[in-house]
Amino acid sequence: MKICLAQLNYHIGDFEGNRNKILNAIQEAKAASAQLVVFSELAVCGYPPEDLLDYPWFVEACMNSVLEIAAACQGISCVVGSVSLNEGKGRSLFNSAYLLEGGKIAAVQHKSLLPTYDVFHEARYFEPAPSVQPIQIAGLNAGVLICEDLWDHYNDFSYARVPMADLHARGAKLLINPSASPFQNGKEQKRKEVLQDNARRFQMPIVYVNQVGAHAELIFDGNSMVVDADGKVVLELPRFRETLAYFRLDEQGANITQEAPLEHEDELQILEEALVFGIREYCEKNGFSNIVLGSSGGIDSAVVQALACKALGPQKVQALLMPSAFSSEGSVHDAVSLAENLGNPYIVMPITGVYESFLTALKPSFGNLPFDLTEENLQARIRGQLLMSWSNKFGHLLLNTSNKSEMAVGYSTLYGDLCGGLSPLGDVFKTRVYALAHFLNRERVQIPEAILTKEPSAELRPGQKDSDSLPPYEVLDAILEQYIESRLGSVAIINSGFDAAIVNKVLRLVNRNEYKRFQAPPILRVSGKAFGGGRKMPLVARYV
Amino acid sequence: MKICLAQLNYHIGDFEGNRNKILNAIQEAKAASAQLVVFSELAVCGYPPEDLLDYPWFVEACMNSVLEIAAACQGISCVVGSVSLNEGKGRSLFNSAYLLEGGKIAAVQHKSLLPTYDVFHEARYFEPAPSVQPIQIAGLNAGVLICEDLWDHYNDFSYARVPMADLHARGAKLLINPSASPFQNGKEQKRKEVLQDNARRFQMPIVYVNQVGAHAELIFDGNSMVVDADGKVVLELPRFRETLAYFRLDEQGANITQEAPLEHEDELQILEEALVFGIREYCEKNGFSNIVLGSSGGIDSAVVQALACKALGPQKVQALLMPSAFSSEGSVHDAVSLAENLGNPYIVMPITGVYESFLTALKPSFGNLPFDLTEENLQARIRGQLLMSWSNKFGHLLLNTSNKSEMAVGYSTLYGDLCGGLSPLGDVFKTRVYALAHFLNRERVQIPEAILTKEPSAELRPGQKDSDSLPPYEVLDAILEQYIESRLGSVAIINSGFDAAIVNKVLRLVNRNEYKRFQAPPILRVSGKAFGGGRKMPLVARYV
Repeated sequence: MKICLAQLNYHIGDFEGNRNKILNAIQEAKAASAQLVVFSELAVCGYPPEDLLDYPWFVEACMNSVLEIAAACQGISCVVGSVSLNEGKGRSLFNSAYLLEGGKIAAVQHKSLLPTYDVFHEARYFEPAPSVQPIQIAGLNAGVLICEDLWDHYNDFSYARVPMADLHARGAKLLINPSASPFQNGKEQKRKEVLQDNARRFQMPIVYVNQVGAHAELIFDGNSMVVDADGKVVLELPRFRETLAYFRLDEQGANITQEAPLEHEDELQILEEALVFGIREYCEKNGFSNIVLGSSGGIDSAVVQALACKALGPQKVQALLMPSAFSSEGSVHDAVSLAENLGNPYIVMPITGVYESFLTALKPSFGNLPFDLTEENLQARIRGQLLMSWSNKFGHLLLNTSNKSEMAVGYSTLYGDLCGGLSPLGDVFKTRVYALAHFLNRERVQIPEAILTKEPSAELRPGQKDSDSLPPYEVLDAILEQYIESRLGSVAIINSGFDAAIVNKVLRLVNRNEYKRFQAPPILRVSGKAFGGGRKMPLVARYV
Repeated sequence: MKICLAQLNYHIGDFEGNRNKILNAIQEAKAASAQLVVFSELAVCGYPPEDLLDYPWFVEACMNSVLEIAAACQGISCVVGSVSLNEGKGRSLFNSAYLLEGGKIAAVQHKSLLPTYDVFHEARYFEPAPSVQPIQIAGLNAGVLICEDLWDHYNDFSYARVPMADLHARGAKLLINPSASPFQNGKEQKRKEVLQDNARRFQMPIVYVNQVGAHAELIFDGNSMVVDADGKVVLELPRFRETLAYFRLDEQGANITQEAPLEHEDELQILEEALVFGIREYCEKNGFSNIVLGSSGGIDSAVVQALACKALGPQKVQALLMPSAFSSEGSVHDAVSLAENLGNPYIVMPITGVYESFLTALKPSFGNLPFDLTEENLQARIRGQLLMSWSNKFGHLLLNTSNKSEMAVGYSTLYGDLCGGLSPLGDVFKTRVYALAHFLNRERVQIPEAILTKEPSAELRPGQKDSDSLPPYEVLDAILEQYIESRLGSVAIINSGFDAAIVNKVLRLVNRNEYKRFQAPPILRVSGKAFGGGRKMPLVARYV
């Protein structure tokens, strides 16, 4: 049997566009004499549809798409993800995979394990499958399990059910796994290992088809693959790219194709690709052809600018240099060098005049009160406002340039440098931003040396340095990683070897700045725990 | 048996504070010779703790609180909500009610039905109870079911399990229901009916204890009550106030107390109280003693200002009047009258100078491009920035003044009038804001007549009126209510009698403005579907 893996990029809610992609893939697979083509989870509507699932018209459109796709399945079988109605008690929907052949729906298998943690909210919409049953596909006893169904004990907890074991007990010889599994940097191997482990444990090949595409916070990298019954990866599809790929299976269910798996890729290389892809997808799917950003001469905006250039091309990335009286000579100079290295249009727009006018307007209220955080925030907000004015006038997407470390401790100004339609680095710690900058410079210097070596500063008052109020970033990031991603408490972090006063200060900063993150832009999620939809912390609480 | 209902206000994560409240209530109940005191769901940590539950130290603190409270339960029994550990498969926690007596834990009952819709995410943290069993309390065969456990078929869907039926079958004679049930205006009766219906169906009295307090988006109104086996409300506690109340039950489980239920309250009265309570709670729990807001002379800011005065007192509410060249003479005059009626400090801070300085800074980039949305937004953002400067300098909480109708259609400026730490009216449609304004004026005129009667305008360009670009608010709000709260699609709304072009325009505006709401302040939730944590719509999607 020749099987086609259709790794496609869906636009959530775009039923016509998604259906056409699926129908084209079916035609192409037929032309290539495939007997089966496999699409990803909830392919007809795109994943995750979130609360659009609460709308009856949306569910109906999913159903209609399945029927239209079924009509095209003549002489070929297809497994495609969509929803189906639950007529019994419980939530009104199932998350389902349909087997389509002979112009109609031949079988339906619902998802059993509904991920409900971090960025996943499937129990909000779906009822779990009452059972799993093998399905006959081209004479082969096959099982279809959707995404999480293979992850029964690979998360922080074990599900009570093991769908693979049920299918194995019922004689399935092949496992098809339509998925929507978001990207997570540094865990590229984990997914593969889960597939390999399942294949070996239950002695069957697994066809894993993931979607590719990014939807604001979530990046889906694709990287679909086939693992044989011995756990060997026999076919691996690229990341961040739509691809149709084929392999053959003999009648006993053994693979008889052996395309090479992907070469080992550098983690930073993958991170760079993920961020560039996330930026490009946000622009394309939301209709932005240009980007604007504030270029401060610092490392964060430099990296965002370089990534944006890779996403849209340098001519499409407008840099605004907005020096104040507190900006160093070097900052403007470095930002100009950066723009020239990258080939971006840039413009220098000093904020001094606007800043003075604000002080004048506020003078009757503020009198002779001393300069404080107010005046620092004022500068950041003037920049935010100039950037938004540019965005409004020319229709450019404003990219936010905050990193995860400063988002964490609130070292950022709400409505100031927290402005933006998308935050590419909001899930990348400062130390990692440096690593990425060096990586971006690997072939030729894009980010000037001075930006890489100068001491980090917000330059909002004379002589200010990040290190005045924060521990060194190596220490800060290590504490933040333990607190946010590993979810250790202060005692555990202190016991791992950090100074108690520093740990408590950092944790207190993280906790008391939830209100800023509540209003932050969507962040491209590249870690296991990003700020945004996957991390729900109370805004009104008293802890640490 | 004399039973105490302890309707208390918990601060999320404040274990010491919550525990002290609980211990004091136990002492008071003992002094009043009560045999049982009932607290609300997850009382030891406050509800909802959200992802704090992912932290082991947090779970441990919950456990320790239960043990400390148990030690105080000598000569009195107590039912208190906390978490417990699941040693089996599945999520690592249960949402539990503990029966404490004789200085120790006498019994534990876990929650069976885990609400996972709208603002509830319980399946994210908890495993459902494997079963429910009656518990002996003071010689009585009692059942303990937590909150949603009584709502098996009163939502949009029916749960497969009916915990009340199980308890009834096992001979329970009394039902104790610790809850954390958020307020929803217009559905004040619904909760009561669910309790009454359960009581009648299973012929047992129900002791319902809800928490009181507000945590950013969610307002918990309390309104705990006792319903007898015939469904009669025999005791009803006030809304928005901590209260200990008592009643007696004879050995057969019949009530022998009959305090009068609450008088029928006007829906607008309750709404006003809820919003005032939500504002006050946010300030108190986050340490704000003053409020600042922008007073435009329009209806929304006027109502927010009046509510804020009720929450903190007029001297604690600072109004900033920030006229531009496009502000009408009347606007400033009306805002001054309002502040004088209410007794607020106010200051006039014209934005013309700052506005001109922005135009100057942008001139080299914008050249002679015509005035458009950019310059409109500029004005709104200057106001936002002045307000934030005030907030930063004096530590006042900035209240947002947007209403639900404009939040819905994006008739608001991101980082401009969308600024603020809390949005009191973001879940109140414009037509309802007017109703509330009239209600606020019921005893004496607080909001000047001119504000009630003038045509709504953002006053961001000459002669602008809301009606230039939006349908009349009666029509707009009716469409929005159907789309957002009743979740009808465009076809269904058009079929209910609205003009197709208007419906499609409104729905398109709602859909394309998700990005603004993503960065909006937390909104006090008073309806069944508020913007914020209870409504997850994709940011990148193509629909309608």
